[in-house]
Amino acid sequence: MEEKPRVMEMKGRDLMKVMHAYGTNGIITEVEMPLDAAYDWIDVVVGFDDYMKAVTFANELANQDGLLFKEIATVAAPVPHDYFLRHQKFLRREQSVVLLMVAPHAMAPFLSLAELRHAEICYRSDTATDAEKKGLPPVYELTWNHTTLRGLRVEPTITYLQVLYPFPEHVARIERMTKLLGNEVPGHLEFTRFDGNICATGLPIVRFTTEERLDEIIRLHEANGCPIFNPHRYTLEEGGMKKTDAVQLAFKHEADPKGLLNPGKMIAWENPDFDLKSDKVYLFPGMQAAE
Amino acid sequence: MEEKPRVMEMKGRDLMKVMHAYGTNGIITEVEMPLDAAYDWIDVVVGFDDYMKAVTFANELANQDGLLFKEIATVAAPVPHDYFLRHQKFLRREQSVVLLMVAPHAMAPFLSLAELRHAEICYRSDTATDAEKKGLPPVYELTWNHTTLRGLRVEPTITYLQVLYPFPEHVARIERMTKLLGNEVPGHLEFTRFDGNICATGLPIVRFTTEERLDEIIRLHEANGCPIFNPHRYTLEEGGMKKTDAVQLAFKHEADPKGLLNPGKMIAWENPDFDLKSDKVYLFPGMQAAE
Repeated sequence: MEEKPRVMEMKGRDLMKVMHAYGTNGIITEVEMPLDAAYDWIDVVVGFDDYMKAVTFANELANQDGLLFKEIATVAAPVPHDYFLRHQKFLRREQSVVLLMVAPHAMAPFLSLAELRHAEICYRSDTATDAEKKGLPPVYELTWNHTTLRGLRVEPTITYLQVLYPFPEHVARIERMTKLLGNEVPGHLEFTRFDGNICATGLPIVRFTTEERLDEIIRLHEANGCPIFNPHRYTLEEGGMKKTDAVQLAFKHEADPKGLLNPGKMIAWENPDFDLKSDKVYLFPGMQAAE
Repeated sequence: MEEKPRVMEMKGRDLMKVMHAYGTNGIITEVEMPLDAAYDWIDVVVGFDDYMKAVTFANELANQDGLLFKEIATVAAPVPHDYFLRHQKFLRREQSVVLLMVAPHAMAPFLSLAELRHAEICYRSDTATDAEKKGLPPVYELTWNHTTLRGLRVEPTITYLQVLYPFPEHVARIERMTKLLGNEVPGHLEFTRFDGNICATGLPIVRFTTEERLDEIIRLHEANGCPIFNPHRYTLEEGGMKKTDAVQLAFKHEADPKGLLNPGKMIAWENPDFDLKSDKVYLFPGMQAAE
């Protein structure tokens, strides 16, 4: 924030100055972005008795260029049955699921492939009766952060992490973490494409016991090549990139010279000498004073 | 063809029986397929003085998930200048090009990236004057098989090949073949996505000298991990997969029991014992008789 606020229009590479900066160096009042074609997406829930079979199937679907999906996620048993209460009637407790939003024109080839892979279609919105659909949330409200939120309503003691399983070893790394952590950290993946390649980001449920064990679970992921974007840290640097974003910092000097915006969020502004490689948690003096 | 022709409707995995079978086991009278959203595609020609820089840039664009292209091709110098006569005025002879069809909403970020990579925009249809556009074919008529056809109008002695540069080593293999064959085989690539991964298929120009040299050029590609789909062979097996397609053959027994359709095209039907691993060219007896 400046003495005299300016309205700035940014596009192209200039967007890097403010993208994912969490309001530390400006206030976004308007966003213009291209939209994609809209389809009458069909919600589908596919069940497997083995979580890695669900993961492998989801990964195969994500790599099928001829099939159009808006959403591909996996959730490990018993989370779907235990936390997706409205969908419980379609699921057995030992079933892990693939959650899908499928374009209508992709349903026929998708079903062919599902049959070939012995995938059980537990629910599909296009043939469900009105009675079956009554009260059901859409599949996208079972995914991303909704998964954890639904879990918290059933078991308030759980928490979660944010994990990247990098291409091309993502399936192997998911398998490794699944074997290592089992039902203490039931898997939840969202399949995405980064720089042209399909990979998976994870929002696994964590059955929380102690801070020390949570830190150990984080260390186990990172030791196995799965970077953690820690949602239990409130600064830009500790949560995400583990380093100063010089472009965002420079723009904060220009657009918020007195550091009034989102104080304590950008360590690089508050304390440029803070060692991001240390295991210490950054504590914003302003937060401490408020205690 | 049967005694009493049947109308069959095929979908899903049944399509494998007839897809890419070149009319050997049926006559397709109607095709139903999903269409994608239409955009007012913008034609762009980007120039580089080094062919591998054009290839690297094209590969980077193809892997940019946020940018929408309908066409990404590269053509090595001096082919664009020498064969694309209508576009010659925009090109220097030493320029290799990237040929693009860009969605309007992708132009701004595409231009940002082009600037960052020092790519020269030789032509763009959205800002070209009417005088500049007069008589110009669209970019898609410079690509795929049009490239060779335009070359043949200028130099009738050339021919071409069809090459696959498999993911993930496609750029390294293109570089190897470019160094190995130089101006005898000027590069032409079409970027595509196979099973989720960006790779490149090639339709390089070949400055033909002898049959023996053409065979040697094919062998050099295959020895360097670049399979050839030989357009100088007329059978299904020799041109493409180098093996019998049992599903297509079985369907021919059902739908064309007397072998009346496209005779000589499917070696598996004519001569099941023909050795596809040999270097011998299959000669259909019917063709020989016609001489």
